Amino acid sequence: MLSNKQQDTIVALATPTGAGAIGVIRLSGTRAIEIANSVFRGKNLEAQASHTIHLGSIVDGEQVIDEVLMSLFIAPRSYTKENVVEISCHGSSYIIDKLIRLFISKGARPAKPGEFTMRAFLNGQLDLSQAEAVADLIASSSEASHKVAMQQMRGGFSNELKKLREELIHFASLVELELDFSEEDVEFANRELMQTLIEKIVQVLTRLIRSFELGNVIKQGVPVVIAGKPNVGKSTLLNALLNEDRAIVSDIAGTTRDTIEDEISIQGIKFRFIDTAGIRDTEDIIEAKGVEKTFEKINQSAIILYLFDAAETYGDDLANIIKDLQVITQKNNSQLLLVANKSDKNHISIPAESMSISALQGIGIKELEQKLLDIIHYTEHANETILTNARHVEALQRCKEALERVLNGIHNPVTSDFLAMDIKEALHYLGEITGSISTDDLLENIFSKFCIGK
Amino acid sequence: MLSNKQQDTIVALATPTGAGAIGVIRLSGTRAIEIANSVFRGKNLEAQASHTIHLGSIVDGEQVIDEVLMSLFIAPRSYTKENVVEISCHGSSYIIDKLIRLFISKGARPAKPGEFTMRAFLNGQLDLSQAEAVADLIASSSEASHKVAMQQMRGGFSNELKKLREELIHFASLVELELDFSEEDVEFANRELMQTLIEKIVQVLTRLIRSFELGNVIKQGVPVVIAGKPNVGKSTLLNALLNEDRAIVSDIAGTTRDTIEDEISIQGIKFRFIDTAGIRDTEDIIEAKGVEKTFEKINQSAIILYLFDAAETYGDDLANIIKDLQVITQKNNSQLLLVANKSDKNHISIPAESMSISALQGIGIKELEQKLLDIIHYTEHANETILTNARHVEALQRCKEALERVLNGIHNPVTSDFLAMDIKEALHYLGEITGSISTDDLLENIFSKFCIGK
Repeated sequence: MLSNKQQDTIVALATPTGAGAIGVIRLSGTRAIEIANSVFRGKNLEAQASHTIHLGSIVDGEQVIDEVLMSLFIAPRSYTKENVVEISCHGSSYIIDKLIRLFISKGARPAKPGEFTMRAFLNGQLDLSQAEAVADLIASSSEASHKVAMQQMRGGFSNELKKLREELIHFASLVELELDFSEEDVEFANRELMQTLIEKIVQVLTRLIRSFELGNVIKQGVPVVIAGKPNVGKSTLLNALLNEDRAIVSDIAGTTRDTIEDEISIQGIKFRFIDTAGIRDTEDIIEAKGVEKTFEKINQSAIILYLFDAAETYGDDLANIIKDLQVITQKNNSQLLLVANKSDKNHISIPAESMSISALQGIGIKELEQKLLDIIHYTEHANETILTNARHVEALQRCKEALERVLNGIHNPVTSDFLAMDIKEALHYLGEITGSISTDDLLENIFSKFCIGK
Repeated sequence: MLSNKQQDTIVALATPTGAGAIGVIRLSGTRAIEIANSVFRGKNLEAQASHTIHLGSIVDGEQVIDEVLMSLFIAPRSYTKENVVEISCHGSSYIIDKLIRLFISKGARPAKPGEFTMRAFLNGQLDLSQAEAVADLIASSSEASHKVAMQQMRGGFSNELKKLREELIHFASLVELELDFSEEDVEFANRELMQTLIEKIVQVLTRLIRSFELGNVIKQGVPVVIAGKPNVGKSTLLNALLNEDRAIVSDIAGTTRDTIEDEISIQGIKFRFIDTAGIRDTEDIIEAKGVEKTFEKINQSAIILYLFDAAETYGDDLANIIKDLQVITQKNNSQLLLVANKSDKNHISIPAESMSISALQGIGIKELEQKLLDIIHYTEHANETILTNARHVEALQRCKEALERVLNGIHNPVTSDFLAMDIKEALHYLGEITGSISTDDLLENIFSKFCIGK
């Protein structure tokens, strides 16, 4: 069914909608160049070389709709490996709509979300995990998320899996061979070597699966709740962190300052700082709702930064708060970071595990940033493959479970056919990630999340 | 000063910001190709032909920022007539920002609004009125505004002015010649022929200036206030008009239905229908504010469509309302359109100047639409040059005044030097429109209204 649909020539706007100097419309399919040529007043596009650009007008009958540049990509030298024409027109939504309708009237059909990239996958331009990285790349908004997506798109992750898969296939074929000779009780596949390999693979899978925790915060940003009593300097701390923020995540993404979240990029990692209403005010009934929300935020955060005034006497109060917060962080598997502010003033003894800063004077801010990075273990894993895709984690998890059954079957010997079954299953899940094994449903599910025009 | 600045290589995003599959960054200037090449991992761009496309990566040191397509346009075969590179990258704002910063670090500078088009003008690609049409084309949101902008961009208006100007220059030179022989009292320029020509030009100018009224409504949409007592069927009428609306102005422009304005395109002309609170309720003090707003809307409208119920007995009341509305339309130089709704019911005698419709049954809607088009005189002027630019109108107005002084000087003979002065002034204003005469201030003023990247 997919291959039939692929015969269609599809069309969509590839650039964002809105006011801009130019818009780019993309046509892909066998008839792309023919359709573009049929409304083009200029050179005969069907007689031109690939990767060339042609100036001319697009006409609907006698009416000139726009003066455009036509970029030609002749199959298989295009993103989709099909014939592709990219039409660069004036960025008027009226013109863009008119042109898309014109192409449809000449035989193209509107592309579905992600359909260009799905064709790139189906035609072997990208494997599935690379195709998924294209969407991540477009959505990337920090250095770290960009780096991970770029690495994945360029096939880093795929290559790592491919190697594992090939080694596993080698043993699978030997075990399969044993099945053919099952009555002779031979072992073509050396059990010791097989065990060593599978243990190594399980180790790699474990690392990859664990990396998702980091990958997820890289993709979504690390949620950090700043809690503390009123007037301990929460806003001053946020401003001090923002001043250090040399990336301009907030500017670009169009986030506004009047939301309760501030996005700050620290060494390329996006942290989402959530300012909260004062904590420990539950006695005050009017505040109860605000506090409830605070606890909700606290439960969703990866890090709780509890800020207190180094110059104030808290007594048992502080110890009690810390104890309460430790219960929460243990329950949520999050991290508690105690920060004593106003370190420039005379201060009383503060808990040993606290950091000292002066938000106002910018003292200790760099150390605090490094501490935040340490907590999420970014620096130590920065050069490893980091998973950011929940689908991949699930497949790897299932693969790992199958391999653990294989290991079990080696220790408590089972017949070769059981081993073969589990190895096959492991291979299946590895294959699902790169798409060497895929179903229509799976593809539909992945590509429908793409934007139209990609 | 302008020509110095032109040596710079400028860079900007040419596509809208926001989520999209791709973004296009434009570099223009002597060093455009060199700068692009310095960060490109792929073919040597400086050794490639114009109008070719090259796939590769953009790197910042060792870091791969994106995989891109580079489109090359070698001077003078580009929009600006300079070297131009268009970089088609993944549509992530992080990547786009990173790439633009990279190009700036390699020697480009951020382009100012309209700077690409200003360069196209300064390098003789477009005249000034054509350059202005580029902005209009991008902003066009209906068939008529698109058509007018396209005509102007393709030079229709400029050619018309050019012809007038050439004929005028002919006489100007003859009059100037008379100045050289001023003591001999000769007339090289035949006063009768000159009068005929100038009268003809004044006639053309008068028509062009008048066309601005239409041009303006085409560009902005025609504001139509629908007034009438509650329950006469205003909403039903709007829906009936919307159903006839085969263009999808509202869909594309993202206008929402819950605003009080409905945009409907009738034969390519955009009408902005403004629903109002009931009229004639001034007795009700609580409604006073709403009514005040209604009258404000009425004063801004080009057409007042007064809807009444054909089946209801209004008596003198209706006559009084009509009289009041006539006073308003005369004062505002707008048009009154009386429409009797519910014509399908038994109805009483309605004022002779009224149209009869049934909004519910769709009777008379087509006729109403034609009437609306007739009121703005679109059909009869559809194939003429229509002015949409206030700057042009002002220049033509001043040109016309100067020419009227020339005519005056022919009737009540003045010396040739007075004639020559006025003709020169007329030529100056004509030249200002196409930019054959321009100043830095004028250009600054025009192009600063463009979007960045154009």
